[in-house]
Amino acid sequence: MTTTLPGLARRLDSIESSAIRDLLALTARDDVISLAGGLPATELIPVDRVREAAHAVLGESSSVQYGETSGWRRLREVVAALQSSVIGRAVDTSEVVITHGSQQALTLVAQALVDPGAVVVVDEPAYTGALQVFSIAGAEIHAIPIGDSGMDTVELERRLAAGLRPALVHTVSNFHNPRGVTMSESGRRHLAALAEQYGFWILEDDPYGEIWFDTPPPAPIASYSDRVVRLSSASKILAPALRVGWMVAPKPVCDAVELLKQGADLCGSSMTQQMAAEMLSDTDWLATHLIALRAEYGRRATALRTALDSAFGDRLSVSPADGGMFVWASFDDGTDTTILLPRALEQGVAFVPGRAFAESAAYAGSARMCFASSSAPILREAVSRLKAAHALS
Amino acid sequence: MTTTLPGLARRLDSIESSAIRDLLALTARDDVISLAGGLPATELIPVDRVREAAHAVLGESSSVQYGETSGWRRLREVVAALQSSVIGRAVDTSEVVITHGSQQALTLVAQALVDPGAVVVVDEPAYTGALQVFSIAGAEIHAIPIGDSGMDTVELERRLAAGLRPALVHTVSNFHNPRGVTMSESGRRHLAALAEQYGFWILEDDPYGEIWFDTPPPAPIASYSDRVVRLSSASKILAPALRVGWMVAPKPVCDAVELLKQGADLCGSSMTQQMAAEMLSDTDWLATHLIALRAEYGRRATALRTALDSAFGDRLSVSPADGGMFVWASFDDGTDTTILLPRALEQGVAFVPGRAFAESAAYAGSARMCFASSSAPILREAVSRLKAAHALS
Repeated sequence: MTTTLPGLARRLDSIESSAIRDLLALTARDDVISLAGGLPATELIPVDRVREAAHAVLGESSSVQYGETSGWRRLREVVAALQSSVIGRAVDTSEVVITHGSQQALTLVAQALVDPGAVVVVDEPAYTGALQVFSIAGAEIHAIPIGDSGMDTVELERRLAAGLRPALVHTVSNFHNPRGVTMSESGRRHLAALAEQYGFWILEDDPYGEIWFDTPPPAPIASYSDRVVRLSSASKILAPALRVGWMVAPKPVCDAVELLKQGADLCGSSMTQQMAAEMLSDTDWLATHLIALRAEYGRRATALRTALDSAFGDRLSVSPADGGMFVWASFDDGTDTTILLPRALEQGVAFVPGRAFAESAAYAGSARMCFASSSAPILREAVSRLKAAHALS
Repeated sequence: MTTTLPGLARRLDSIESSAIRDLLALTARDDVISLAGGLPATELIPVDRVREAAHAVLGESSSVQYGETSGWRRLREVVAALQSSVIGRAVDTSEVVITHGSQQALTLVAQALVDPGAVVVVDEPAYTGALQVFSIAGAEIHAIPIGDSGMDTVELERRLAAGLRPALVHTVSNFHNPRGVTMSESGRRHLAALAEQYGFWILEDDPYGEIWFDTPPPAPIASYSDRVVRLSSASKILAPALRVGWMVAPKPVCDAVELLKQGADLCGSSMTQQMAAEMLSDTDWLATHLIALRAEYGRRATALRTALDSAFGDRLSVSPADGGMFVWASFDDGTDTTILLPRALEQGVAFVPGRAFAESAAYAGSARMCFASSSAPILREAVSRLKAAHALS
């Protein structure tokens, strides 16, 4: 048989497979310490509480049957209550859709709001999973650099004034993947005002907002405008395997996403949604769990930054690590991280080269390093291997 | 705020919401016996075995972490072995992708193989979830009537000879939803030969194949050609809430679907996939469970058909019920089931009018009735209410 695939399949061939997936292959080697992944620490996932939740919800047969497309109602209520508190206004249950991880929300929102050929503005560097979604949607992608305060909204305003007309602006507002930074309050206000002025949607992608170390991030962009579709997830705070993400958006967007989700998968798992509802509404347990998670991730972030500083000094600029799972490290000595990577693998350490996150050569000297999935001693060993690889280059 | 949604969202407004979803609303009324749903019987879902599987897999922390996009490897192996036996050739693990229910496979296959404007052939009447997917994909949909032996492949051949050039032909091969029938072996061979001759893909949608009452259905269409993408699911035999479906297809199609799935949701739930692998590989338990499931569904099918025959006699033709979850009943006395439905609801019984499954007025006198989710006495009461509604009309 000659297998011929029509247009989209051919187009897919030209879309580079997400760096996330390809690099999972590297992390599988036993002798490699991987700072390349984007997984939460397996040992910090509360598997006992997950098992308890499974046992509890499987006492009712509703947990094994099909459920509503927009999500298990009780979970939507729990998310609406939590998000009301974060956003600072009453979020109605009808403004919440539960999705199969927030990645599904990204895809369905792109299908609902982005026509082929429409302009989408993204961060540079950007979350590769978002780039892939917007490429598949056929969007014309414009990248706006992000600095230490998140997306450069002054640059965005300049381009808007010059005629750029995006349908959607996507940004990871808190503890950016891969850039590590958090958007300032003034940046959020500015972006919200631009959305109102120019009539675009903001896709506020916030998987890491609850993983802050010393102080919570500023109020979400959704606090300043209702032209915001706000995404978050249980993957980083409870367990990825629940595949529970959520979207808070104006009802017409929720309705369109619900209809698309019906075609996409009929509904999510009643079981894992009920489990998420049980854990998220167990407020005392959740508060204690988050305190422990923040403390341990904070220790790991400090360990990695301290080790990098001690190993490389002025030759390496490392982003702040106020939360989330990543630091962004940039060599100032001409090191090309794409060339460094194979040497690093020989020494037994992996990271993601900056080029994976943007077309621009500006990131050739940068790397994303995940501190979440390794303990402090392992992180120190990883940096020592990285130093050896760098010395050989 | 004025909420304006661009092109796709506007187009969605014109796609009728799936009858399945809208009719779930009817089933919620306590005083209505619903034959309208498409849910497996809640009381026959093996919730104790599901709980046991959850307990077992949650002993390993891999069950709560992210997993591979193409599916949990062990589950792919188990499915490959089961499908090898059904199809009658060795299916390689690389030819299996696990999806979030087989509905997700439908959507991703449509994205991979159907360009906007491409021709897709569907059954008439058709599974509404497939119609929705192909509409969203922008396909030009051609319906081929199905009779007592499944899709009329002679009519399809006539249209192919006249110039019809489908990219894809979708059919529910076993215990058709909504039509109740099973495609004959000769029909399967014919369709496979046409696919080879005219170069289209067959999407063999088979969620009900394991739910046969007296004899298993003929070998799948995938036995006769490798231009077949074969879908099935754990939803009807284990539990819908696992959201575990699978696709068996040539590797290039699997690769395209895997890449699209990465954008769609990164991966499925490690937990529910591991649970499905555990239950599907527990062959003694599975065999016993399927025997019990087939026997009870068979009793229900017989109860519904007998009651309909006794109540309406010659005025109603009822499809055979050799398996699956539905019968297709057609009034021969001029009854319009769309007009009958509100009267039936007044009497406390619901079904899906034939018009929901096709544009054609030919199905105005027909109805889909689900025998799976009600016990035999309830089904008899439902028919008695239906008779009362019919007498009033």
